[in-house]
Amino acid sequence: MKTKIKPSILSGFMELLPKEQEKFNNILEKITNVYEKNGCLPIDTPIIEKSEVLLAKSGGETEKQVYSFSKGKNNLALRFDLTVPFARYAAQYYNELVFPFKRYQIGKVYRGERNQKGRYREFYQCDVDIIGKDELSIKNDAWIINLVSKSFKAIGLSGYKFQISNRKILKGLLTELSIKNSKEVMILIDKYEKIGKEAFIDELNVLVGKEKGKVIEDILQMGLEDLDKLTVDNEDLKNGVEELKEVNRMLKVFGVKENEYEINLKIIRGLDYYTGMVFETILEGNESYGSICSGGRYDNLAENYTDNILPGVGMSIGLTRLFFILQEIGFIDNYKISNKFKYLILPIGDTLEYCGLIIRRLEEKGVDYSIYLENSTLKKKMNYANKLGFENVILVGEDERENNELIIKKMTTGEEHKIDIKAL
Amino acid sequence: MKTKIKPSILSGFMELLPKEQEKFNNILEKITNVYEKNGCLPIDTPIIEKSEVLLAKSGGETEKQVYSFSKGKNNLALRFDLTVPFARYAAQYYNELVFPFKRYQIGKVYRGERNQKGRYREFYQCDVDIIGKDELSIKNDAWIINLVSKSFKAIGLSGYKFQISNRKILKGLLTELSIKNSKEVMILIDKYEKIGKEAFIDELNVLVGKEKGKVIEDILQMGLEDLDKLTVDNEDLKNGVEELKEVNRMLKVFGVKENEYEINLKIIRGLDYYTGMVFETILEGNESYGSICSGGRYDNLAENYTDNILPGVGMSIGLTRLFFILQEIGFIDNYKISNKFKYLILPIGDTLEYCGLIIRRLEEKGVDYSIYLENSTLKKKMNYANKLGFENVILVGEDERENNELIIKKMTTGEEHKIDIKAL
Repeated sequence: MKTKIKPSILSGFMELLPKEQEKFNNILEKITNVYEKNGCLPIDTPIIEKSEVLLAKSGGETEKQVYSFSKGKNNLALRFDLTVPFARYAAQYYNELVFPFKRYQIGKVYRGERNQKGRYREFYQCDVDIIGKDELSIKNDAWIINLVSKSFKAIGLSGYKFQISNRKILKGLLTELSIKNSKEVMILIDKYEKIGKEAFIDELNVLVGKEKGKVIEDILQMGLEDLDKLTVDNEDLKNGVEELKEVNRMLKVFGVKENEYEINLKIIRGLDYYTGMVFETILEGNESYGSICSGGRYDNLAENYTDNILPGVGMSIGLTRLFFILQEIGFIDNYKISNKFKYLILPIGDTLEYCGLIIRRLEEKGVDYSIYLENSTLKKKMNYANKLGFENVILVGEDERENNELIIKKMTTGEEHKIDIKAL
Repeated sequence: MKTKIKPSILSGFMELLPKEQEKFNNILEKITNVYEKNGCLPIDTPIIEKSEVLLAKSGGETEKQVYSFSKGKNNLALRFDLTVPFARYAAQYYNELVFPFKRYQIGKVYRGERNQKGRYREFYQCDVDIIGKDELSIKNDAWIINLVSKSFKAIGLSGYKFQISNRKILKGLLTELSIKNSKEVMILIDKYEKIGKEAFIDELNVLVGKEKGKVIEDILQMGLEDLDKLTVDNEDLKNGVEELKEVNRMLKVFGVKENEYEINLKIIRGLDYYTGMVFETILEGNESYGSICSGGRYDNLAENYTDNILPGVGMSIGLTRLFFILQEIGFIDNYKISNKFKYLILPIGDTLEYCGLIIRRLEEKGVDYSIYLENSTLKKKMNYANKLGFENVILVGEDERENNELIIKKMTTGEEHKIDIKAL
């Protein structure tokens, strides 16, 4: 006998049993539906691309995590996000796209991250970006956040809170304070929530001195009203505040409620890439899981591939990790989806041709059904119906066939109804 | 200025513009819907698996085509079909699955095939398999073909014809004729359609002699009626014919029409793996594209991973290639999908808050809409609506706001209606 190979998958990959997979797919479908109903067009790009294309911009951490290999004379890599492929796509088909271009893309991406619970090496991203030709109104920044809000509402999630900032404010502030090591300061602010206020202030004072540290820390705590009263005469800072105000205004236009978001200048989202509005999303009471959706504004999406200027704003729901978090907090256990297992036809004796007539009637009515085709005892058949959660079984014996009838048995109550096939 | 990298993808990968992608996704959705309505459960497996797991069975041609690489200490490979991962999955979660287990899986698979038109290195497969514990009724073989029929009907495809055979018939026949080089004969039969009848007979006669060649060629042409009359006393052959008859009977039960299928003993589907019923699907008048969907019966799905016996029957729609063929034959050009671009709101002047009220009403009604947020001329806005195929624009100027009205303009006719917001 041949040696068996142990059936297993690599660590860091999510795999679900069918009943959980149904819930995962249902969430994916609802998100897709929100994206489509709001005028986003779909694209799909290869998971494998040329290394030179995927790694045009990146370096450091990202590059180390990328799955890359060669096949023949080509250096290949697996995409590590959907933004870089989108940048390549937008540059490649620039002349055939209609701008502003609202695209959504949902697919798997790959990162060889350090193995830890809840971090996946293969995960679904559900991205929406809107990009303009040369310019794009700041109003879209609010539209993007509104789309996340709609997505979460569609799946029945509550308790999320968008943390919204604008990079220009800190950029202007640090310039105004003549801070030379602004990169280090930004990195430190990015760690604020992680290290806590006290440690933050200590480290900040080391970096910029106590006086400037106090100014920065004060501004970091400000909401929109206080920011609006600032009299600092710096273009970036003023623009940043104006943009935040416009985002705030437009969020209300789109119907995002005040309890769904707050201004939080401590949100940075790494150092590169974003240039204006940035946001993260926390789950209140479950902040330790980190952001469940983030995004922001960038000046020029595809600068590595084209001279055309494509400013935009985008967001990404990392669905695999979100699903993990929703499992952890008990949301998935309580997540109800409509049962597709409505009717199971059980032929008893020589009734298959007659079952065919029943099938035809069910199909005409658009009713979901399944049929049990094995030769086995009625007990075994009922057991099967039970395990799969069928709501009803349709018992079709030879008597029923003779009388053009069928028996519908409700699984929860055991109640049986004999009906005429024409009444189906 | 930084050097630009040419935006391009690898050859052998399909990428679509958004309006084609919508059609692709619509077809995918309809197929998924058929699978779900017929009681199939979804699974999703990683695209990357351990090489030893994915390549447990294969060798030769397949192995050469596989994308494999290493990361850290692991030898990895990209899945080249959905059957091997399903076998691994079924073995791994055996105790948690309900049998017969009807699963569907839709996803991308990878084969580094020789580059040629219409052959893709990354392609979607839409698979359904039903597997039993130790045994599985032959009736499921017809159910599987019926599911393909329903899928094609769902997308409005006609002119397909299932070519159905059963391996046992030829196996029995070759044994009965005491043919030693049966493997070569099977390979030759597999090439029948490609090389044509004359060349086939010539080569067959070389392999088995003229007399036996005549018997084989005669039987290859037989339909069910003739096969049923055969008096050859061989178990395999008799079983094969009985199974074909049962498949034929059950296809009628499931409502598959006689013009949708035919018996064709020249169908082999390669040498390994399948053990009973096999089928391919041709497009009548477009036979040169080859099979657009195939599948068959196997005795033991997961023998490389477990001692449990899992017989089953399955099929796979290779959607990327099918989409290519449907593009070639003009089906996609004529493929109509419901337009999600129903309404585009065009705010004119300072009317955004009022547009918010309109949005809320549209959302209450479940109407799809989009909103144009850029500062630009009305001409440019209308141009945008036109290019994206919006059916209507909703013009919202300051006059409309003052009167709680809005103007709906039908794009095809230019007709305008002013209505009260409450009438929306």
